[in-house]
Parts: sequence; C-alpha cells; structure tokens
Amino acid sequence: MTNDRHPRHFEEDLSQLKSRLLEMGGLAEDRLRSAVRGLVDRDLAQLDKVLTGDGALNQLHIEVDDRCFKLLALQQPMAADLRAIVSAVKINSDLERVGDLAVNIAEAAARNLQHPKVKELIDIPRMAVIAQEMLRDALDAYVRRDVALAQRVLARDDELDLLKTLVFRELLDYMLKDPTTIKAALDLILVSRHLERTGDHATNIAEDVIFMVSALDVRHQA
Amino acid sequence: MTNDRHPRHFEEDLSQLKSRLLEMGGLAEDRLRSAVRGLVDRDLAQLDKVLTGDGALNQLHIEVDDRCFKLLALQQPMAADLRAIVSAVKINSDLERVGDLAVNIAEAAARNLQHPKVKELIDIPRMAVIAQEMLRDALDAYVRRDVALAQRVLARDDELDLLKTLVFRELLDYMLKDPTTIKAALDLILVSRHLERTGDHATNIAEDVIFMVSALDVRHQA
Repeated sequence: MTNDRHPRHFEEDLSQLKSRLLEMGGLAEDRLRSAVRGLVDRDLAQLDKVLTGDGALNQLHIEVDDRCFKLLALQQPMAADLRAIVSAVKINSDLERVGDLAVNIAEAAARNLQHPKVKELIDIPRMAVIAQEMLRDALDAYVRRDVALAQRVLARDDELDLLKTLVFRELLDYMLKDPTTIKAALDLILVSRHLERTGDHATNIAEDVIFMVSALDVRHQA
Repeated sequence: MTNDRHPRHFEEDLSQLKSRLLEMGGLAEDRLRSAVRGLVDRDLAQLDKVLTGDGALNQLHIEVDDRCFKLLALQQPMAADLRAIVSAVKINSDLERVGDLAVNIAEAAARNLQHPKVKELIDIPRMAVIAQEMLRDALDAYVRRDVALAQRVLARDDELDLLKTLVFRELLDYMLKDPTTIKAALDLILVSRHLERTGDHATNIAEDVIFMVSALDVRHQA
C-alpha cells in the first residue's frame, strides 16, 4: 500500500468507477433478459449461456471493489466524494447479486423446460421488464446524482410485489386443480421470487443514491 | 462534515463498531431462531414477535453505516484499518438482509400454520442451526481476524445446499402424493430457501474477513 496521493486524478478515477458500474448494470440486465427469454421461448441454449456466462460480471465485481478500495486509500476523499465511493461499494454488491439471481432464474427455467408448458407466461416477463427498468434507472440515478429518479425507482417496488402475489396465486391455482403441473409451476414461482429480489436490489441502489446526494438515510421508514 | 481527525480515538471507535456488528448478529440470530421455532412449535405469537420486531436491527443498520462513514471521513484510515471499515459496511448490509430473511421465514411460517401439519420438521430446524452457527462464526472471525475460522464457514455452505435440495425433493414428493399438502409444503420450501440465503450472507461475511485480514480476494474462485 502506497500513501501517494494524486488528487488531480480523482475525478477521472471516479468517472471510470461509474462507467464500470454502468457496465456491470448492463451485463446484469442482459443476463436477466436472456434468462427470462430462455424461459418464455423454452430455449435451453439461451439458458445455458446464462448458466455459464457469469465470468465477466464476477470479474467486474472484484475490479470495482479494488477500485473503490484504492480510491479510499490513496485519495482519502471527503463528504460527497466519500459517499459516492461508499455507495459504489454497496452498489457493486447489489449488482453481483443480481447476476447471481439471473443464474438462479436460468436454473429454475431449465428445470421448468423439462415439463410441459403450464400456461402462457405474461406476468413473469412483465416482472422482468420492471426489474430491468428499475435497475437501469437506479444506476442512471447514481451516475447523474438524480434523487427524483431514485425516488421513482422506490415507488415501483410495489408493482413488483403485486405481480409476485398475482403470479403466486395463479400458479397455486394450477397446482391445486392439476397436480401434474406442480413441478413446473413451482419453478415459475421461484422465478417470480428471484425477479422480486432483483427489484429489491434496485431499491437498495436507489436508497444509496438518495443518501449519496442528500446525505439523508431513507431506509427503514416504511 | 468536519475535517478534524482524532486518531487516538480510532481504536476505540473501531472496537465500538465491532461490538455493534456483534450485537446485530446476535439480534439477527435470535430472530431466525424465533421464526423457525415458531414454525416448528406452530406458535403464532412467537411468529408475530418476529414480524413486528425488526426495529432494533434496522436502527443498528443505520447506526453502523453512520459510524463507518464517520470513521472513513474523520480518521482517513489506511491499509488494514481501511479494509476493516469497508468490510463493516458490507457486513452491515448482510446482517440487515438476514433480519429481513427472518421476517420472510416468519411470513411463510404464519401462512403454513393455517394448514394441517405436513410432516415433522427435521431438516429445516437443522438448516436453521447451521445457518445460525455460520453467522456467529463469521462474525467471530471478523472480530478476531481469524482466517481459519472464516474458511470453516465457507466450507459449511455445501451442507446447507445439500439440505435445501433434500427438503425440496421430500416436500415435492408430499405435494405430488397428496395435493392437499400443496399450500403448506410450498411455504416450507420457501422457508428452506430463506435459510439457504442466510447461509449465503454468512459466506459473504466470511469472504470479507479473508479479504480484510489477508488483502486476498477469494470470491468467484469456484
């Protein structure tokens, strides 16, 4: 560990950090999209790509943590800059988990494809779109320091919760009426849970953005 | 934000930070235990306490983040101290999620109690004990900077995964053989998933400990 400081590079380093997070967000979003498309199109090859392709995201996860650590150690930032880096540490964890959730979705989807189709999927792809939009907006809010956008992300979490409940009830109904659908429906319920958790991570990111910009902790106010 | 530094207080502040994390870990563990005991004993009052009692843990979550932030801002720690604080930021998030998972378990358990008992629960309480031990060991490893203990935590994640798979197969069997068990069994499957995720958070903490002590990133090496 060196104690050299290069304050003139700070803005550049912070901006590189932000582009890495955007890159991670883009990858995570792509992987979510592929996992849900693989489920809807019953396309095992598509799912296989998700199941084996988490190397790039994991690499970025390590790189971002390393960049945050070096920025904290070498630049010793204060106030807003410090909050931006501590937020990056947290956002990095959230994005890595979203990548894991894409794998979990692909796993459940691959099991689901071993059984006949239970029903046309409508609410699950809708949940995926909302989760992806929440993720993208939360990261845009981080990069642009946009509290209003972060607050709009928080407001959308209820949409996902509602859809999750609808999906659960509907699939439970299928299972009760026709027990041959149990295995396949169970996997679809798990997929909807994973999508809800993706939204939770977008919510975490949005809360971090609000803290970063306003130094206001809005968590646990429900 | 002030730029004052009080290096002589640093050790004391860091030690207070660590006791807060231990306190959070203890609370999270208690809440997990109550949620699973409420499920096993079919004790709704016990579950209600978990469902309404997340105030203390949430308060600590905010306090710990605040302490970390002030330590970073005012003390500008280097090397091992910096790693200890960045780790604390991450561990804090993990512990808060474990608290949320206890609530999720209590929710699924409360739904489960509305139906007749599916079976004697053996593997789920066993999963809970393992998850609690992993959590406690991971936090002890953090406080004592004990890499060997952290590595033992990582090794136990497979036990949880195995039990989760056993629970899933067994309950699926009940559902297929007797569709009247579907609703209750579904909630038990969700409980086992929440316990597995608790173990994942303990794993995250153990990985952070290894990084903190050895400056070695052991993630994504599977």
